[in-house]
Amino acid sequence: MLSRILIANRGEIALRVIRACHEMGIETVAVYSEADRNASYVRLANESVCIGPPDCTQSYLNIARIISAAEVTNVDAIHPGYGFLAENANFAEICRDCGITFIGPPVEAMRQLGDKVEARKLARRAKVPVVPGSEGIIENEKEALRLANEIGYPIIIKAVAGGGGRGMRVVHNDISLHAALASARAEAEVAFGEGSVYMEKFIVEPRHVEVQVMADQEGNVVHFFERDCSIQRRHQKMIEESPCPVLEERDRERLAEAACRLIKEANYVNAATVEFLLDKEGDFYFIEVNTRIQVEHPVTEMVTGQDLIKWQLRIAGGEPMTLRQKDIRHQGVAIECRINAEDPANNFSPCPGTISRYIAPGGLGVRIDTHVHQGWTISPNYDSLIAKIIVHQPTRAEAIATMRRALQEFVIEPVKTTIPACLDILSHNLFVKGKVDTGFVERSL
Amino acid sequence: MLSRILIANRGEIALRVIRACHEMGIETVAVYSEADRNASYVRLANESVCIGPPDCTQSYLNIARIISAAEVTNVDAIHPGYGFLAENANFAEICRDCGITFIGPPVEAMRQLGDKVEARKLARRAKVPVVPGSEGIIENEKEALRLANEIGYPIIIKAVAGGGGRGMRVVHNDISLHAALASARAEAEVAFGEGSVYMEKFIVEPRHVEVQVMADQEGNVVHFFERDCSIQRRHQKMIEESPCPVLEERDRERLAEAACRLIKEANYVNAATVEFLLDKEGDFYFIEVNTRIQVEHPVTEMVTGQDLIKWQLRIAGGEPMTLRQKDIRHQGVAIECRINAEDPANNFSPCPGTISRYIAPGGLGVRIDTHVHQGWTISPNYDSLIAKIIVHQPTRAEAIATMRRALQEFVIEPVKTTIPACLDILSHNLFVKGKVDTGFVERSL
Repeated sequence: MLSRILIANRGEIALRVIRACHEMGIETVAVYSEADRNASYVRLANESVCIGPPDCTQSYLNIARIISAAEVTNVDAIHPGYGFLAENANFAEICRDCGITFIGPPVEAMRQLGDKVEARKLARRAKVPVVPGSEGIIENEKEALRLANEIGYPIIIKAVAGGGGRGMRVVHNDISLHAALASARAEAEVAFGEGSVYMEKFIVEPRHVEVQVMADQEGNVVHFFERDCSIQRRHQKMIEESPCPVLEERDRERLAEAACRLIKEANYVNAATVEFLLDKEGDFYFIEVNTRIQVEHPVTEMVTGQDLIKWQLRIAGGEPMTLRQKDIRHQGVAIECRINAEDPANNFSPCPGTISRYIAPGGLGVRIDTHVHQGWTISPNYDSLIAKIIVHQPTRAEAIATMRRALQEFVIEPVKTTIPACLDILSHNLFVKGKVDTGFVERSL
Repeated sequence: MLSRILIANRGEIALRVIRACHEMGIETVAVYSEADRNASYVRLANESVCIGPPDCTQSYLNIARIISAAEVTNVDAIHPGYGFLAENANFAEICRDCGITFIGPPVEAMRQLGDKVEARKLARRAKVPVVPGSEGIIENEKEALRLANEIGYPIIIKAVAGGGGRGMRVVHNDISLHAALASARAEAEVAFGEGSVYMEKFIVEPRHVEVQVMADQEGNVVHFFERDCSIQRRHQKMIEESPCPVLEERDRERLAEAACRLIKEANYVNAATVEFLLDKEGDFYFIEVNTRIQVEHPVTEMVTGQDLIKWQLRIAGGEPMTLRQKDIRHQGVAIECRINAEDPANNFSPCPGTISRYIAPGGLGVRIDTHVHQGWTISPNYDSLIAKIIVHQPTRAEAIATMRRALQEFVIEPVKTTIPACLDILSHNLFVKGKVDTGFVERSL
């Protein structure tokens, strides 16, 4: 059992982890940059250490300072949250070398799944459908041309080290393939220091559906059903829900079983999310594994009644997964809206600043995860997520009604937020009918 | 179906009703005293009417002003909340005479159950166990003496029109009976304008257990299981939970069935709470029916997943209860702590004033029902309830852990609150073991 952990993160996820720890009797150490000195999670942690100036590279991304804080405060383990160092296998390796438990997967599984080409190979071995595409890196143009015609246009070129849409190009014919290949490589080189690319069939208007999985050190793997995260803007999720409103019961089971097979094949331990694209014919294709807890994990917690962070902590402490698959039930519908300090009327540009008036929604079926409060100053140094509203109701129509009233209640002044954009989406006929895909926001908002 | 209602109340319950209405598409009219002009529920209602100065008798208790606001704003119905006019049968009768639906029971059922002697008779007819005692009002001392010896000491004398502990006396022997009778009558005369008293066996160290019931206009009656409200201070509930931690499954069913029988016998419609004392032998005795929604109703909502206010609104609108008893399931454990602006270190004296710093707890398993926020001024004119924290977890130990961390997170400054008192109770060995009775707080805090 863990008795004292350090949280190598900030914001709402730092508070989320501290809450779970304190309910379990685990002591917590918060690390913070000078911008976060007065944060509520710093106040609530049993101990806290300032690790540097607001700039991430000198604080939340600075491995040496975090490890040194962990050693000074004598913790058993580090929870990385999401973002920052959460998917950095080198950081996980350094933790291991220092005798500190990294609350996440083994270094090897992280490396393997972090490499998209390797992850695709793994999926094939586990008989999990992948998007048709190149077996590995594209070596030359001739091969690219042959492959593109074999798969059939449209195809998409992606960076091996990629993420966030960088190094990606959709190609519709032979003529544009040459230029797309060159520009994707160049962009990837700049963004990730690694220009290798691979090719996949481009799925037209897919939904993004992902499966929450948890594995223990004894090889037990269970899933907590799926989340639909098709409401995205520039590859950033805005609204997530569970269950996926269009999946048939049999397909849901097949999807979840595929995710578990893949996680088993990777000898994975701890929380993972297996992401898929779901096409209009109801076929799904593996895209990648996120080897950490995700922003949208509360959606799954509401519909299953399970605390995923507590499972992460128990498994990292060496406890077996006492939960069996049949004990995990899915009940009702949960929806999450991410509230970002961004101005929807001004191309979603970030709106840092001090919150002078703040009244959060509450009541039946409403969960709020936030580190902000009246008087809090949103720093321009970090991502713009300031709160998550999660609702849970027996039906999707009721969940939408509850989310709408919660968004309408929420007072955050004077910073601009994504609340009006979320309200627009929730009122949209196609969203209400569940007929959306990952291009919905860009087309409709 | 109702389309527009007025809420004849204030504070968290006004907000609670408005939330349910807006999720159902029902328009709302708030009434407010001058002290509540800037309240969040006034802002959130579709329309609002000032009905007078802060003094309750000139605003929230003023029937003429409320009816006039209802007529001016053209509403179908009035929700009375709890307290104020919620159990005033004359108010319900005036609503009926004005063609406004009173969201509560029929006037006749309210009158009958509001009279404790009548309610006892009704319980006997419904074969619901009552505390052994006088069949009706005690006419003279000779009768009192005979009865007390028949029942066996200790006995308790209670006012027919009573409530809140006024007009009550516990008597241990013949010698003190005379004085107790006289002083109870005098106190009741002053408090309620009606000095009649009755006698009951005094149950030693009982638990307070109550059953939530809902009845529709077609005579369908269902229950939503029980709440244990043994944590009381001077007959005011402080902490409520469901299920009752000591009831055996068979006794739970018997208790709930008894409550339903009584409600059927009363030709009752809408929400009711049937209150019982549970003695150390596991026997239960009916004490009274609350003919309104209660402060602690969220405890039941969390464990059943049912929105009780929405059921009140549907039933008042003439809809049948589509829920069958077998569809109502009890899941996990819920606990509510009432946060009052009172100073536990100073005999729980009220602490009105302006909240200059406010950070509410949140996260998994935590529901907050409150009308307050940073900058809100708590008026000395009204009761001191400022927030309710309700937690829901799979087990009682987890629910206690979540409530403890939620209370520890809660920042309300500079007003004093009952948070430290709630934390003391939650940490007490006897509470943790579930071994409490209605005298626990006075003995242990």
